[in-house]
Amino acid sequence: MKKILIALETGKNEQACFRRIAEAAGVPCEFVFTTPGEATPDQVAEAAFIVGNVPPRMIAGSENLDVLQLFSAGADPYMVPGVLSEKTLLCNATGAYGLAVSEHAFALTMMLIKKLHLYAASRSRACWEDRGPVTSLSESTVLVVGLGDIGLCYALLVKAMGARVIGVKRRSGPCPEGVDELVLTSEIDRVLPEADVILSVLPSTKETVHFYTAERFAAMKNTAVFINCGRGDAVESEVLLQALRSGEIAAAAIDVCETEPLPADSPLWQEEKLMITPHVAGNFHHSSIYKGVLEIAYKNLANYLTGRPIGNLVDLSTGYRQ
Amino acid sequence: MKKILIALETGKNEQACFRRIAEAAGVPCEFVFTTPGEATPDQVAEAAFIVGNVPPRMIAGSENLDVLQLFSAGADPYMVPGVLSEKTLLCNATGAYGLAVSEHAFALTMMLIKKLHLYAASRSRACWEDRGPVTSLSESTVLVVGLGDIGLCYALLVKAMGARVIGVKRRSGPCPEGVDELVLTSEIDRVLPEADVILSVLPSTKETVHFYTAERFAAMKNTAVFINCGRGDAVESEVLLQALRSGEIAAAAIDVCETEPLPADSPLWQEEKLMITPHVAGNFHHSSIYKGVLEIAYKNLANYLTGRPIGNLVDLSTGYRQ
Repeated sequence: MKKILIALETGKNEQACFRRIAEAAGVPCEFVFTTPGEATPDQVAEAAFIVGNVPPRMIAGSENLDVLQLFSAGADPYMVPGVLSEKTLLCNATGAYGLAVSEHAFALTMMLIKKLHLYAASRSRACWEDRGPVTSLSESTVLVVGLGDIGLCYALLVKAMGARVIGVKRRSGPCPEGVDELVLTSEIDRVLPEADVILSVLPSTKETVHFYTAERFAAMKNTAVFINCGRGDAVESEVLLQALRSGEIAAAAIDVCETEPLPADSPLWQEEKLMITPHVAGNFHHSSIYKGVLEIAYKNLANYLTGRPIGNLVDLSTGYRQ
Repeated sequence: MKKILIALETGKNEQACFRRIAEAAGVPCEFVFTTPGEATPDQVAEAAFIVGNVPPRMIAGSENLDVLQLFSAGADPYMVPGVLSEKTLLCNATGAYGLAVSEHAFALTMMLIKKLHLYAASRSRACWEDRGPVTSLSESTVLVVGLGDIGLCYALLVKAMGARVIGVKRRSGPCPEGVDELVLTSEIDRVLPEADVILSVLPSTKETVHFYTAERFAAMKNTAVFINCGRGDAVESEVLLQALRSGEIAAAAIDVCETEPLPADSPLWQEEKLMITPHVAGNFHHSSIYKGVLEIAYKNLANYLTGRPIGNLVDLSTGYRQ
């Protein structure tokens, strides 16, 4: 009897669907449906297949766990040595977040280039004040740093608004739809000075921690806007704040921070050139995410029970989907 | 000697262009280049052709004035009896504002549907708080009320994001590009309950004053967002505030108010579901506006000096371009 732990809010329909998959595979399974916060240490320790981001400390090298299917795209807390045993396959939910996060990033982009973050700050002071000229995406070069699912969806959106799009990725390859020019991550410094908009959707890996250095912000246009919808550790708070205060860039928006929640006494809150959203771009706030995560989980449970290759595997050396 | 008053910020290139038009027409002209704020009563009284929104009281029925070429799309202050003499042709700059105002309205739309106005309010309180689910334009019905230049440009933008677009206009006609369904203004009550987004770009006319009544807000979805980038008198502040406070609509954004500047003690400033921009959508904040206004002014000066029909004439009975 395989023990399957679904640590993800589900309704009757979703639960029935998981059970039907097990029946179709002809493998007797015992399902436990719970949430990440309510899963008990025993439930986690006994499970052979887990769907959901249960607390990493509960897993602690469980020898029963064959597959951990996360509902997040980022997998960094589960890659820490000692969390997963060697036999456990780690799967992320890359593919479920493209629409939601790219649209959030796109909305932040429009907000910044139209100075709506400044007008929102004026509003909070009951102040009718003109904040000056604005630009269009149709006259902008947009740098998309990280060309996974989210980056590619975002590229299509800004391209539809007439932007010139430069995509930045680790490995060379064909230029995807919506991207005008492809640049390797190692060559980013060559194109940073051209960008009017920089979107970062980098995951958290050894190579991406503090990727946006003071020197890189200094290389950007003074009129550039920087948006981070990837992982918070790609940029140190102090470096970002300094880049905004010194006028090295015009504005920024972050959905992620080095420390989350961002403490109430962080000086980042006080910087009106900075828009902050509390890691909500991909937080089940859009119906497409839940649907997408379930699709991946259904497919991988079927793969697991029938002995087919598991999809969305995380490469433990890079943190990316293999 | 025709006296031509250009009451609009110009540089050497623009001034040379105006002079070349007069030379090409073979009509001796005396040009005065100034700004609306610096134009003197004498300059205005003597001019046969004015480019720019000089103060209406300065015109006061001037018999010399053949053509008043505004740089605004709205012409209402100049339609008040006693401002223009019967001989004066009034021209607006409809056509120059489509790109800039539609993009501003589009940015406000994305901001509201992604709840960025709420996150901006949270930011001003240094508060990391989740504001719940969001939607996409691809699952939305967008009502565009007023299908002039701005409305048509906006329709194309939201259509590109996958929205279903219902256009609302005074007169029937063929369905323009970007619009899925055309509805007469008189029939708007039939489609208000269907809309997830309502953009108003109505000009100020007898028919449009207080167009959005309490009953109309009550007919909208509780989840709808309302945006006004037309004229402020289309909706009474108190009615809008009530619709937001009572939850009849979810959010609103206004670039225009009944009283501008909006007084610091207006309760509108305190409503976090409301985003306010200080009439900047079309206020020469985007380079396309200045270019577009000059194109219209160049063309009409040439038309005037060579006796060809003047374009962009305002219909004094409706306030719209003829």
